[in-house]
Amino acid sequence: MTAYLEAAERAATFVPHAFDEHLVDLGEVRMNYAVAGDPSRPALLLIPAQSESWWGYEAAMGLLAEHFHVHAVDLRGQGRSTWTPGRYTLDNFGNDLVRFIDLVIGRPTLVSGLSSGGVLSAWLSAFAKPGQVRAAVWEDPPLFACEIAPAVGQGIGQAIGPVFAAWNKWLGDQWSIGHWDGLMRAMPAELPFEILRNLAAMIPPGETADPAAGPPQNLREYDPEWGRAFVSGAATASCDHASMLARVRVPVLQTHHFRTVDAETGRLIGASSDDQARRAREIVTAAGGRVDYRSFPDMPHSMHEHDPKQYAATVLDWVATLDRPTNSTEE
Amino acid sequence: MTAYLEAAERAATFVPHAFDEHLVDLGEVRMNYAVAGDPSRPALLLIPAQSESWWGYEAAMGLLAEHFHVHAVDLRGQGRSTWTPGRYTLDNFGNDLVRFIDLVIGRPTLVSGLSSGGVLSAWLSAFAKPGQVRAAVWEDPPLFACEIAPAVGQGIGQAIGPVFAAWNKWLGDQWSIGHWDGLMRAMPAELPFEILRNLAAMIPPGETADPAAGPPQNLREYDPEWGRAFVSGAATASCDHASMLARVRVPVLQTHHFRTVDAETGRLIGASSDDQARRAREIVTAAGGRVDYRSFPDMPHSMHEHDPKQYAATVLDWVATLDRPTNSTEE
Repeated sequence: MTAYLEAAERAATFVPHAFDEHLVDLGEVRMNYAVAGDPSRPALLLIPAQSESWWGYEAAMGLLAEHFHVHAVDLRGQGRSTWTPGRYTLDNFGNDLVRFIDLVIGRPTLVSGLSSGGVLSAWLSAFAKPGQVRAAVWEDPPLFACEIAPAVGQGIGQAIGPVFAAWNKWLGDQWSIGHWDGLMRAMPAELPFEILRNLAAMIPPGETADPAAGPPQNLREYDPEWGRAFVSGAATASCDHASMLARVRVPVLQTHHFRTVDAETGRLIGASSDDQARRAREIVTAAGGRVDYRSFPDMPHSMHEHDPKQYAATVLDWVATLDRPTNSTEE
Repeated sequence: MTAYLEAAERAATFVPHAFDEHLVDLGEVRMNYAVAGDPSRPALLLIPAQSESWWGYEAAMGLLAEHFHVHAVDLRGQGRSTWTPGRYTLDNFGNDLVRFIDLVIGRPTLVSGLSSGGVLSAWLSAFAKPGQVRAAVWEDPPLFACEIAPAVGQGIGQAIGPVFAAWNKWLGDQWSIGHWDGLMRAMPAELPFEILRNLAAMIPPGETADPAAGPPQNLREYDPEWGRAFVSGAATASCDHASMLARVRVPVLQTHHFRTVDAETGRLIGASSDDQARRAREIVTAAGGRVDYRSFPDMPHSMHEHDPKQYAATVLDWVATLDRPTNSTEE
């Protein structure tokens, strides 16, 4: 039984940002968020990736704020939202967002999430309260590939899992270890070679990523127990992706970025394989849903951070089609 | 990936009841419920036990309706609510109830649940949205004792687990087997002797329980996958009871009924042991919460079905104390 940690108990961690931050009490957690744009515009909810805080969307928010009333959140265990040891699951993350839409947005919203946040965008597409979600963008979501034993393709152990495992091992649940130098020294030895060779294409080293400067800000705000919860399967338990996808009830845009499957080991480097991304669309379509697909094979995992203009344009172009019923696939 | 099952797809299962039934769309599930009493009275939410439908409260509802606006629900996988294969967890059951309080009750409510429903009453005491729950009755809840590896005392395998396992084995997920005669023949062989010897004190054979007449109505309305989810630990994963109890934020009445620990095997027959019930109170109290305790050592597991008058009086007596700040323990 480990105590919850509120932002005030980790106050030295944080740095200022261009948008004001707010805290809303959702019951179990206090969720931190930032808002941009005029409330008269359509609502948009942005859901960050694992190890990302809301401000990963800062550049994109500036662009999207001309068109939407934008809300970007910290999920439990990330940023200034409550850290909840033992309780990092897709269903808990997802139901936090259901409460957030109710209590803060208060009207039907578009949702867009990256990576784990993209899986949560899928979760909301399937499981939100009626009328909460108008349409959903899934930005490079690890559908199937973040499960332990997925219906199709590589599980997390055959994908990005070793990176999360290394973070958790050297930094510890709630940063209880915090051995950054040890992590830096261990990565070349503990990560499979095929990850080391391809990781930069998926996650380019950023300007702030000088390892000698210590942990980057996004990791400092991240509870490394998240990583363990995904590697162990606790986070994805009782939320089979095939079953979830069959329940999708709103129009979806799925983007698919850099990915490669190592010929020798079969390991996936990327959020999902072509087979997994295709199977996800097949399930949604077979259940009567609409899913549009855009492949960006040279794009890093986070389009919204690496190329915020392309991300904003992709969202806007697709949203403009929502009144036109189509089911296009562009590969 | 098994399809969800709505009540309409199992329509032949059901029988008429004294109160009208209603269906509300919560997003993932359609939840069935019945209402009694005048809407001007305080709201009360009743949460049935595992293998119980809302109408297990029918007699109690008649008594409570003089004092409350009473809502009794079917949880997912029980009664006329949606069956959701693979998704029976405390967090999903609990968040269904959060949505139900929002969409149907619409104001702060008292909650009272039996057994698994009592654990969900505890879950709501800790994790509901701010202001949703005024106070909570935990009717003989298997705190700790329905977990796989609890912080204190017997886990479910050392308690009622073999009963749930036998139901699931012979009836099958979603009644896919339905071998009632086989179950009846197997029980004496598959259940530990100490359960067989004591079960009648915990769950007295009811008027409808003639095994030759086939499965009782409550079991016919129950998805036996519930049993497997609890025995495997899937239902209770990522919801450690000690951690949950430390988050309780509303006044609580805990009732504790028949229980015994077999001297030879250490098996618990009953919802929770004295140690477990005491430890639950200690954790709530240490976190600054109020928990009152009433022991009914001769009472079967379901007071509200076995002795609805005693149940209604117990709830009413306690609710009358809510304006008086006390922390009494009566054993």
